[in-house]
Amino acid sequence: MKEALLSIIKDENRIITGPIDPQYLSDNLGRKKGTAEAVVFPVSTEEISGVMRYAWKNNLPVTPRGAGMNLVGSTVPSGHGIVLDVSLMNHVLELDEETFTATVEPGVVLEDFQAYVESKGLFYPPDPGEKKATIGGNISTNAGGMRAVKYGVTRDYVMGLELVLADGTVVMAGSKNRKDTSGLDLKEIVIGSEGTLAVITKCILKLIPKPEDSLSVLLSFDSLKAGIESVRQIIQANLNPTAMEFIERKVIQLGEDYLKMSFPEPEASAYVLTTLDGSRNEINDHLEGLRKVAKESGALSILPLEDKEEAARVWKIRGMLVKGVEAVSEQEPLDIVVPINQIDAFVNFVNAFEKECGMRMISFGHAGDGNVHLCVVRGDRDDETWEKELDANLTVLYDKAYALGGLASGEHGIGLSKQKYLLKASKPENIALMKRVKAAFDEKNILNAGISYNV
Amino acid sequence: MKEALLSIIKDENRIITGPIDPQYLSDNLGRKKGTAEAVVFPVSTEEISGVMRYAWKNNLPVTPRGAGMNLVGSTVPSGHGIVLDVSLMNHVLELDEETFTATVEPGVVLEDFQAYVESKGLFYPPDPGEKKATIGGNISTNAGGMRAVKYGVTRDYVMGLELVLADGTVVMAGSKNRKDTSGLDLKEIVIGSEGTLAVITKCILKLIPKPEDSLSVLLSFDSLKAGIESVRQIIQANLNPTAMEFIERKVIQLGEDYLKMSFPEPEASAYVLTTLDGSRNEINDHLEGLRKVAKESGALSILPLEDKEEAARVWKIRGMLVKGVEAVSEQEPLDIVVPINQIDAFVNFVNAFEKECGMRMISFGHAGDGNVHLCVVRGDRDDETWEKELDANLTVLYDKAYALGGLASGEHGIGLSKQKYLLKASKPENIALMKRVKAAFDEKNILNAGISYNV
Ligand SMILES: Cc1cc2nc3c(=O)[nH]c(=O)nc-3n(C[C@H](O)[C@H](O)[C@H](O)COP(=O)(O)OP(=O)(O)OC[C@H]3O[C@@H](n4cnc5c(N)ncnc54)[C@H](O)[C@@H]3O)c2cc1C
Ligand SMILES: Cc1cc2nc3c(=O)[nH]c(=O)nc-3n(C[C@H](O)[C@H](O)[C@H](O)COP(=O)(O)OP(=O)(O)OC[C@H]3O[C@@H](n4cnc5c(N)ncnc54)[C@H](O)[C@@H]3O)c2cc1C
Repeated sequence: MKEALLSIIKDENRIITGPIDPQYLSDNLGRKKGTAEAVVFPVSTEEISGVMRYAWKNNLPVTPRGAGMNLVGSTVPSGHGIVLDVSLMNHVLELDEETFTATVEPGVVLEDFQAYVESKGLFYPPDPGEKKATIGGNISTNAGGMRAVKYGVTRDYVMGLELVLADGTVVMAGSKNRKDTSGLDLKEIVIGSEGTLAVITKCILKLIPKPEDSLSVLLSFDSLKAGIESVRQIIQANLNPTAMEFIERKVIQLGEDYLKMSFPEPEASAYVLTTLDGSRNEINDHLEGLRKVAKESGALSILPLEDKEEAARVWKIRGMLVKGVEAVSEQEPLDIVVPINQIDAFVNFVNAFEKECGMRMISFGHAGDGNVHLCVVRGDRDDETWEKELDANLTVLYDKAYALGGLASGEHGIGLSKQKYLLKASKPENIALMKRVKAAFDEKNILNAGISYNV
Repeated sequence: MKEALLSIIKDENRIITGPIDPQYLSDNLGRKKGTAEAVVFPVSTEEISGVMRYAWKNNLPVTPRGAGMNLVGSTVPSGHGIVLDVSLMNHVLELDEETFTATVEPGVVLEDFQAYVESKGLFYPPDPGEKKATIGGNISTNAGGMRAVKYGVTRDYVMGLELVLADGTVVMAGSKNRKDTSGLDLKEIVIGSEGTLAVITKCILKLIPKPEDSLSVLLSFDSLKAGIESVRQIIQANLNPTAMEFIERKVIQLGEDYLKMSFPEPEASAYVLTTLDGSRNEINDHLEGLRKVAKESGALSILPLEDKEEAARVWKIRGMLVKGVEAVSEQEPLDIVVPINQIDAFVNFVNAFEKECGMRMISFGHAGDGNVHLCVVRGDRDDETWEKELDANLTVLYDKAYALGGLASGEHGIGLSKQKYLLKASKPENIALMKRVKAAFDEKNILNAGISYNV
């Protein structure tokens, strides 16, 4: 294999065939480990096309990989194949200020890209928690994040994708045009497909002008229910915050302990943390609206975080909740999504179930779009007990989510970790149709063959 | 066939098998006429599934049909099959104010739906010109329209679709959840697929709160170029208008003549007609921003249409341009889309080409998203000359659009009318992939078999 790959990649520093560093055989959690015969680091579409042609001819599984920051085992290779790491393809190819688009390679790192476009007065709204992830990885998981309530998810900013299909064919799907009803919109089915349909080799992204200013505002409540109800009122009042995060007081404690920082309004039971952005006038306008909603929905307090340092501290605690959990114990991260009016029901169920089953469960998340992040905490269970109890408890949690009209994943994807639970909730006809679409792209099933619906 | 259909539809008033009213065999223009053996008017998913099972078994072509308002021959049946008209399925099944969603049957008429949700303080932003079109038709063409600059296109408001596949299988794709990375997002490839992949039998739509107010503003320029340049500045300044329509003075004249109404600022050469919406404060803020841009971009004038009657008159003239053209002559409507910085280049090309080829061409459209509506006017040409010259001229126009990075259709679709020009500009590998995806949904190619990429 090495020789064949060398004839394509032509630089042995960009091919690993000897012992493979385990980081390339796993995801961000590093729990599930796979095996592969080689890792390659291509630098061009041609190289990727060459690798895929070779893999296709030889029926080799290929695992596309960005920064490996996913949490669901979607970059865990199976068996004798190739890990295709695009992280060296990390160039912004064009910033077109006349069409408000950027054309980038898939390995561009999110935080670099955000900083770059902002330095030009532009803005790329998708903002998932992990800033070291790549644009290609974000697109492949249709990443969401903190600003999705106002600005939507990654899908909403993808205008075009250059794709290398499983057999090495290069297809350009989409363009710099803002509307398109010119044949099937092929890029749309690739977005969120977790590397199973094609390798993304170029991305045309939509940008918007950078908002003039922003202001975070913390609402405090005496119950989660009251907090969640305010979210609906905030939407109804057209106040258009970028974020609406719900956090229970008991969860905040973890972040405080971990960071040795304190969070405002410690007497509350639950918070809704929002950010307003736009011109200063708009912000003031919407702040006034928020005050009205806060009053009507019985908020204990409303705290505009005008001091940028305080705002940064509050968001840091919010951002570090998972790390706070992980400092104490291994955990299984879920990102169940439910219709926005079911968050309260779901979180209450989780809180009751936590008591019942004795496994610690910590939930917080994106109230504005129903996306609940749930850490299921291992504690001091041994391997066997943890595996068994976790599976039993996840089954209960997913079943509840499905019963409320929810889904297994809002933004992290299915990967290996949630496959079983997705399949359980999916109608056979949906899975059959997904498989046929998969076959239309990759008849031999070599791209990320082990993951997702893709079994 | 009649008996078989009666065993499914069970109401002979909802089956036509005798001579078929030609309206069911054509599109809104009525020029291309097809043939079919039957028209059915199902009232439920079960009936549609039954009809599809029957058609699948007997290899009969099926043409799904909403209101038949398309302009591209996408409801022109070919041969011995069935026209499946969903217009009786016109009920709003649920308005869920807690999740800001509506669940509707596909035959719900756009204007009825808009009025209904607005009466509840909610808003469905997609607003294509033809208000008698159906939601199912809008989804199948990914309809755009007047508010797409700010609010996006129909795709952005589709959360879930119930589909009947070609073999009669019923699939629910999507849900009321606001985020979804739970397997391939099947609904996304159906949106804009012009009835070729599946029959849409139920639609879950996203709603937003109704904006408090709106204000249209007319900017006048001494050249189209200056007008188009202002559009970029308006976007950059984050003024977020719902619409940015460009119209040349010579085109406005047509509407004035047709309606016997007068348009403001008659000395200008070109206009940009915008609408601001939001709270009164936001509108005032953005109006101030518009004044600044108007000054910087050398606008001759900026006219806020505070008088609702005047605003309605101005929009009526804009809305009636096509009818104004059609009052004089048959025309071929194009909806070419180009990157937003190429509109000026494209329209100037059209103006020069009009002189060169001697065929009248009238262009106006959605400057904010690069979508140029172009009426190519027949005049008094006889059938043969018109057909020949039109084809030659369309080839030149599409070639120019492609050379500028544009596409054949921004929102009307490809249908029969643009098939040839789409295929000319498409890479074989894109068409091949579309065909494989089509086969994944409809292996026998019975759904709208003659149209689009679908040959
Ligand atoms: C601390 C933390 C916080 C997070 N917060 C969020 C959050 O708020 N919102 C959110 O959405 N996610 C979040 N995530 C998850 C993670 O950031 C996303 O899954 C991210 O999109 C992964 O990008 P990546 O470049 O690391 O991709 P990888 O992990 O390398 O790959 C992810 C998937 O994409 C595929 N893939 C990658 N590149 C390509 C390519 N070029 N072509 C085809 N397929 C490709 C892979 O095969 C795999 O299936 C978080 C993760 C961490 C660790
Ligand atoms: C005066 C005028 C102005 C217009 N302005 C605009 C505009 O501004 N923007 C814009 O985007 N369009 C515009 N259009 C085009 C037209 O309104 C759209 O194409 C509309 O979406 C068609 O809807 P319909 O219900 O009439 O669908 P039809 O014309 O009946 O069908 C259109 C396509 O959708 C398919 N289809 C319909 N229903 C279903 C279903 N339930 N399941 C599967 N497939 C189905 C059909 O097979 C066909 O391919 C305009 C048309 C006119 C006549």
